[in-house]
Amino acid sequence: MALLTRIRGPRDLDRLGPEQLDQLAAEIRTFLVDAVSKTGGHLGPNLGVVELTIALHRVFDSPNDKVLFDTGHQSYVHKLLTGRQDFSRLRAKGGLSGYPSRAESEHDVIENSHASTVLGWADGLAKANEVLKKDDHVVAVIGDGALTGGMAWEALNNIADAKDRPLVIVVNDNERSYAPTIGGLANHLATLRTTDGYERFLARGKDILERTPVVGRPLYETLHGAKKGLKDFIAPQGMFEDLGLKYVGPIDGHDIEALESALTRAKRFRGPVIVHCLTEKGRGYQHAEQDEADRFHGIGPIHPDTGLPVKASAASWTSVFGDEMVQLGREREDIVAITAAMLQPVGLKKFADTFPERVFDVGIAEQHAATSAAGLATGGLHPVFAVYATFLNRAFDQVLMDVALHRCGVTFVLDRAGVTGDDGASHNGMWDMSILQVVPTLRMAAPRDAEQLRAQLREAVEVKDAPTVVRYSKGVVGPAVPAVGRVGGMDVLRKAGTDRPDVLLVSVGALAPMCLEIAGLLDKQGISTTVVDPRWVKPVDEALAPLAEQHRVVVTVEDNGRVGGVGSAVSQALRDAGVDLPLRDFGIPPRFLDHASRKEVMAEIGLTAPDIARQVTGLVAKLDGRLDDEPSRTAEPARD
Amino acid sequence: MALLTRIRGPRDLDRLGPEQLDQLAAEIRTFLVDAVSKTGGHLGPNLGVVELTIALHRVFDSPNDKVLFDTGHQSYVHKLLTGRQDFSRLRAKGGLSGYPSRAESEHDVIENSHASTVLGWADGLAKANEVLKKDDHVVAVIGDGALTGGMAWEALNNIADAKDRPLVIVVNDNERSYAPTIGGLANHLATLRTTDGYERFLARGKDILERTPVVGRPLYETLHGAKKGLKDFIAPQGMFEDLGLKYVGPIDGHDIEALESALTRAKRFRGPVIVHCLTEKGRGYQHAEQDEADRFHGIGPIHPDTGLPVKASAASWTSVFGDEMVQLGREREDIVAITAAMLQPVGLKKFADTFPERVFDVGIAEQHAATSAAGLATGGLHPVFAVYATFLNRAFDQVLMDVALHRCGVTFVLDRAGVTGDDGASHNGMWDMSILQVVPTLRMAAPRDAEQLRAQLREAVEVKDAPTVVRYSKGVVGPAVPAVGRVGGMDVLRKAGTDRPDVLLVSVGALAPMCLEIAGLLDKQGISTTVVDPRWVKPVDEALAPLAEQHRVVVTVEDNGRVGGVGSAVSQALRDAGVDLPLRDFGIPPRFLDHASRKEVMAEIGLTAPDIARQVTGLVAKLDGRLDDEPSRTAEPARD
Repeated sequence: MALLTRIRGPRDLDRLGPEQLDQLAAEIRTFLVDAVSKTGGHLGPNLGVVELTIALHRVFDSPNDKVLFDTGHQSYVHKLLTGRQDFSRLRAKGGLSGYPSRAESEHDVIENSHASTVLGWADGLAKANEVLKKDDHVVAVIGDGALTGGMAWEALNNIADAKDRPLVIVVNDNERSYAPTIGGLANHLATLRTTDGYERFLARGKDILERTPVVGRPLYETLHGAKKGLKDFIAPQGMFEDLGLKYVGPIDGHDIEALESALTRAKRFRGPVIVHCLTEKGRGYQHAEQDEADRFHGIGPIHPDTGLPVKASAASWTSVFGDEMVQLGREREDIVAITAAMLQPVGLKKFADTFPERVFDVGIAEQHAATSAAGLATGGLHPVFAVYATFLNRAFDQVLMDVALHRCGVTFVLDRAGVTGDDGASHNGMWDMSILQVVPTLRMAAPRDAEQLRAQLREAVEVKDAPTVVRYSKGVVGPAVPAVGRVGGMDVLRKAGTDRPDVLLVSVGALAPMCLEIAGLLDKQGISTTVVDPRWVKPVDEALAPLAEQHRVVVTVEDNGRVGGVGSAVSQALRDAGVDLPLRDFGIPPRFLDHASRKEVMAEIGLTAPDIARQVTGLVAKLDGRLDDEPSRTAEPARD
Repeated sequence: MALLTRIRGPRDLDRLGPEQLDQLAAEIRTFLVDAVSKTGGHLGPNLGVVELTIALHRVFDSPNDKVLFDTGHQSYVHKLLTGRQDFSRLRAKGGLSGYPSRAESEHDVIENSHASTVLGWADGLAKANEVLKKDDHVVAVIGDGALTGGMAWEALNNIADAKDRPLVIVVNDNERSYAPTIGGLANHLATLRTTDGYERFLARGKDILERTPVVGRPLYETLHGAKKGLKDFIAPQGMFEDLGLKYVGPIDGHDIEALESALTRAKRFRGPVIVHCLTEKGRGYQHAEQDEADRFHGIGPIHPDTGLPVKASAASWTSVFGDEMVQLGREREDIVAITAAMLQPVGLKKFADTFPERVFDVGIAEQHAATSAAGLATGGLHPVFAVYATFLNRAFDQVLMDVALHRCGVTFVLDRAGVTGDDGASHNGMWDMSILQVVPTLRMAAPRDAEQLRAQLREAVEVKDAPTVVRYSKGVVGPAVPAVGRVGGMDVLRKAGTDRPDVLLVSVGALAPMCLEIAGLLDKQGISTTVVDPRWVKPVDEALAPLAEQHRVVVTVEDNGRVGGVGSAVSQALRDAGVDLPLRDFGIPPRFLDHASRKEVMAEIGLTAPDIARQVTGLVAKLDGRLDDEPSRTAEPARD
């Protein structure tokens, strides 16, 4: 690491010659494999952009020029070149974020890790430069996968509109995001990639054509006058130029000199330009290069020599879902599956292998996933769209206006719901149970264990005339939590020991074991507690209000934002039934959560059994007149 | 109307000859001008698609084939040809919807009027046909404006992926949606439009080129082998073909025979095809054809001979906003404005005329509006994005993850918030105050009158590090409602006459006059009532809980969905403060509302002063022990 450790900022790259740059790239790759195999993180994407990131920071002058990364998990090299080389606590509490972070560095701009945003940011920044008459540059790096997202298109359409507003778009084309990129755009990029040597061909073609008369003038001129010119039709990059975007490429994304040359030309052009770079995900790490399934996109700790995980993986929520889908697919021919470029991560690989004609990968395109699902349902099928909970935010309008308004039987399966932790603010699935509350007719399930997941998925796909949602956590599924009774459609998980119990505890999803623990702690304080799992959290079960009336206090606990969540829905249902009991709702406070382990985050926000038990004890004491005020909340208030 | 009245369904078109079809088109135009000038509605778009709709229903066999319209306000001709010719109560309660409606006809599929959805629906329906091995056709009509929306791109990318899945896309290109269509795509379409006569040129070029040898083979073949072929580079429709979509056009959209010929070819192709039709919005109605400002896109009742409105327009919320923006623009050079293809309807025309360099029309692209606003703010400006409340749903993820997470000072101005009524379910702005509650740091204002709108807009653009929202109703702004006091940041609109008052009534936005009326009605029942306008409804003012504690009951009234709205936020804030008073929240129930006038809708859902006063009276009686149960709610419960 002789060279790397001497790089304190981008300008330290200026004095390095070609051989030193290659050595630096090699050092960075060694560093990445070594560091990320210890902590886990995004390995493959970063190994692919080593040379590209070096070239970007040599040609552009960050932070005056803005260097922007889409889906910032490809920013590790950028971190190394901008003064951040302690990766020992990557993605852990207090350590480096796995994404760009404004708190870490003035070189970071976009923190969020939802895809396809970078071109919108770049358009805004370039417009601001124009209005404020600044000469700084804006350069945006976007993967070919992220170009399939609608907001990338909206941005391209705007960027192309201003011919003299400088903006450099680097398409980092590795032919895959998580999975191989799909769709017409991917085919177009593939055509561009195969036009090797077209510049040579162009020169020859021009020579011949200039001597060919058409209606009295040289054919070359005629062609050239037809807006796109000869170069275009031989190398059919037409699409971008038709929009009004200049195109440079394809460039070998692992050739620093070629990259610098292309980027320099693009920078000098002073208008919108696309620089098309071909890179290899996982470059330089044999296990990643050879892996078809793209297991090295994001990893937990691995043995660097073998590429194998340090911990064996246990049965996850995802795998329980994936297995049950195959079973359902066998039983019902009308069930089809949709993924937004994440077949493997959401557990649909087995279904796709078994029923290849009945799975649709739509690209990074959650809006289209939802609306095409409405079309599939109207056409007579039952689509199941499996997606990370946080990414469904992209399709809120489509769930509401296409699926629900049209009474379509579509099932949304939300993986990685609740606090996920180490991927930071934008990966926590803490919004879904709030925003989906407002969708009329939608029914939402939060299974507490594997058996309930299977059962509720089956109940969901039975609904023919409304959207259904099944949401669950990230990672290993917990032990079975048996019901001890049933009230309405709700499972009673624990009966209070007395006739006039104190607390009705409403447990949501995977927090059932924690809720049972809370009940145990309350019991020790002489507070008798019933624990109920509503199973379907929307709509609120009609049996809940009568059950609540048998208690003195209602408490809700959910792994979702407190604002507008299940607690709010229960509170409203009680009001509507004229039941005006004190209620306390525990969940995630309305703020963006810094990266840390799930356990650390849960402790920090007061979502632990002792914290909640302490507060409920205080409330009961207040009602008994034994205390003037409740204890101050560890769980934070909803006010932000 | 000799011919029109005899058309009971699409198949009645089969027996008409060319001259009769032209006569039918003329009859339809006369009918539309006559009918829509009486009721109001969408005139210009429908006058533009008369011939196109006739041709579609002659070539395709609805409802077996699915004929789909994007933004269904262009479906009036379709209604006339599918058995619906009574337009006397268009958009009125019990009359025809202004959009397609499944309840009206089996020929209608997509009801919603948010743009750019049709290709997603079409993709889903075509996939369902494939899975179920059906031979039916799917044809989708989309405007050039709607193609700027991201979800249209996501769909195109998917549609292009399957070369042998039949799907006909008709681009209805009138060069404008509300405003002239903008962006790179618009420029591309313009190029296509100007290639008049290229087919002739193509034939000649092919002839010459076939005789020109290149490296031992005919040049034509060489060109043709380069994927796109000669036709493409002369008529640079490259973009669509690059994606893998066949292209037919441009076609004169007012020539029925040409349209039928093109549609028939497209139908026979058995793969994805784009048919590019040029139409003229307002065709055949002189006042609309000559109107640059596109006033005839959607109209109220007009005098058909003059095209002038029957009622003079009074000062609207929109115009108050528009005037104040100009004033703010003069005072602060950093203020810029954004619209999503609706410069005039959202009131930004004056600002654009005064500061042409500081307004950005991004196309029908709400996602891009929000994310580019984050870029503009990061670049040093303060963007104000004015948009219909219901359309902001499209940008939820971007408001959350781009604007709020990055602490950007961006102001969202939501017009047409609350019940709008006659445009049906998808135009009511009833979601914003619920889903935006979950966005950390976001501050939201609901001004009650013109003065407050001006004041709160000014307060909003002062916030530098968080998103702000100002939301208001459709139409004429009501009379000024003066404050009689102030508590914290809240205006007291009415003080209760007693020391220990009964009811704290929280009034949201334009419902202030109704809330004062409720208080008057309660007064007559001996129930003393304080009325407070929080002004900023998010976050809940810290002074609210202490104020509430001085009362026996809290009541909230809002022109927004009840679920997760201001009432829920107030309820949660009271719980968090340990104030466990009975609360009743009044708002819009969680269901899709049928079209009717705003007044009719408000009455139907129980959002009237007498209804609310009656229920609050019942609650107080129950608390006094004078009544066992509260009266049943006219206002519907939140359970759906």
